[in-house]
Amino acid sequence: MEKVILTGDRPTGKLHLGHYVGSLKRRVELQNEGDFDKMFVFIADAQALTDNYDNPEKVRQNIIEVALDYLSCGIDPNKCTLFIQSMIPELTELTFYYLNLVTVARLQRNPTVKSEIQMREFENSLPAGFLCYPVSQAADITAFKGTIVPAGEDQEPMLEQTREIVRKFNSIYGDVLVEPEILLPQNCICNRLPGTDGKAKMSKSLGNCIYLSDDAATVWKKVKKMSNGEPRMSQDEPGHLEGNAVFTYMEAFSTNEDFAEFWPE
Amino acid sequence: MEKVILTGDRPTGKLHLGHYVGSLKRRVELQNEGDFDKMFVFIADAQALTDNYDNPEKVRQNIIEVALDYLSCGIDPNKCTLFIQSMIPELTELTFYYLNLVTVARLQRNPTVKSEIQMREFENSLPAGFLCYPVSQAADITAFKGTIVPAGEDQEPMLEQTREIVRKFNSIYGDVLVEPEILLPQNCICNRLPGTDGKAKMSKSLGNCIYLSDDAATVWKKVKKMSNGEPRMSQDEPGHLEGNAVFTYMEAFSTNEDFAEFWPE
Repeated sequence: MEKVILTGDRPTGKLHLGHYVGSLKRRVELQNEGDFDKMFVFIADAQALTDNYDNPEKVRQNIIEVALDYLSCGIDPNKCTLFIQSMIPELTELTFYYLNLVTVARLQRNPTVKSEIQMREFENSLPAGFLCYPVSQAADITAFKGTIVPAGEDQEPMLEQTREIVRKFNSIYGDVLVEPEILLPQNCICNRLPGTDGKAKMSKSLGNCIYLSDDAATVWKKVKKMSNGEPRMSQDEPGHLEGNAVFTYMEAFSTNEDFAEFWPE
Repeated sequence: MEKVILTGDRPTGKLHLGHYVGSLKRRVELQNEGDFDKMFVFIADAQALTDNYDNPEKVRQNIIEVALDYLSCGIDPNKCTLFIQSMIPELTELTFYYLNLVTVARLQRNPTVKSEIQMREFENSLPAGFLCYPVSQAADITAFKGTIVPAGEDQEPMLEQTREIVRKFNSIYGDVLVEPEILLPQNCICNRLPGTDGKAKMSKSLGNCIYLSDDAATVWKKVKKMSNGEPRMSQDEPGHLEGNAVFTYMEAFSTNEDFAEFWPE
């Protein structure tokens, strides 16, 4: 069986260091290791509309931003195929037919979607497209016969949903689709980079991001203001690890050479 | 504004006299009156899959049957455009994006879908595609800027759903889509032809249909066995109108000339 890697991002904002540490870095490694037959990296603009249907302009503008971020961090169009989801209308066609193979109750039980619905406070205003987006993901993965999907543990229910659709489809239409597996991150510590303010997650709305497209001066400005945990009462008091973004960033980005230079003992 | 008529059928079986009286006859009249700019008649095979996903062969075979029935009763490809829904993948693409403009709660409130869900005993096994089929209908209608949809009163909630999507879409993307209106049948008595057994509805599963494709001998055989209501106790007793399919059929199909010939007084 062919080894096909497939992964992507919703273009709802510029990508930041959190994305880099959480997924892009690994993605570039996978690409450069070359241990696959095909690799696809795509910009999920159609999926981004499921919770941004009232702001298509935001999605449109961020397609090019995310593409630039991809190229800047080393995604190489000579090694893998980059594409924009909405440019492949067959993916929406496939989604349409897959919708018949999934019950509404099953979609409502999906824990990832459940927590995202809560986060977005959709409740009674849940767009049908948002409830159905795991089916759209199944279309994305299976259209390319993706076998390996690099993603965080929270995406496992999505992959399980895809596998269920594959099995149902194959039971009706013959052995056509391939079941994908998740490829979890290797380095759990750096899975989720905290924001520059020390908060658990880097997020545009919290204003605590370092963007891949920030220039050196901007990065320097943001780093100088970074949280290093609870303020100390006196110079003698040891620093705190809790909420100390500086330490986590050092762990994520410093090399042995950096330590040798700045912390020789 | 252009006058665009759009209508169609799910290819889940051959069409019968019930379809003819309920919709096809009027459709042919509309076509021949020519009071429109465009007229589309389509075979809704993609929609038929929403509750026949486990039997695609049935849908596939009935596409040609329905097409033949259309031609046989006077639908004329020179006067209106005939098409197969699944051959226009843009309709599924449009459905995908419209799904973002409709809430799950709104779809669950649709009275037509509600009663169809009950009829099919879906309950907890309701396919997402079936819940979403009014959105697919909205795509069918609006893609061709349909303004007039000939249909029964029970379809009014579907049209209302389409108009809601049109308004939402236009509020975001500008004045693009057109709101359709339903065109109700003129002759309410003949709206629903009973089966040959006198039961309220002609239905394949009840085995009480006269198909448009039945040959003369078959029609004659079926007519001879038709119900004329409650059996009479004696020859002197007058016939019953209740459940008397013969009378309803006479009303639907006999002309003044027939009455002049067989019932001169």
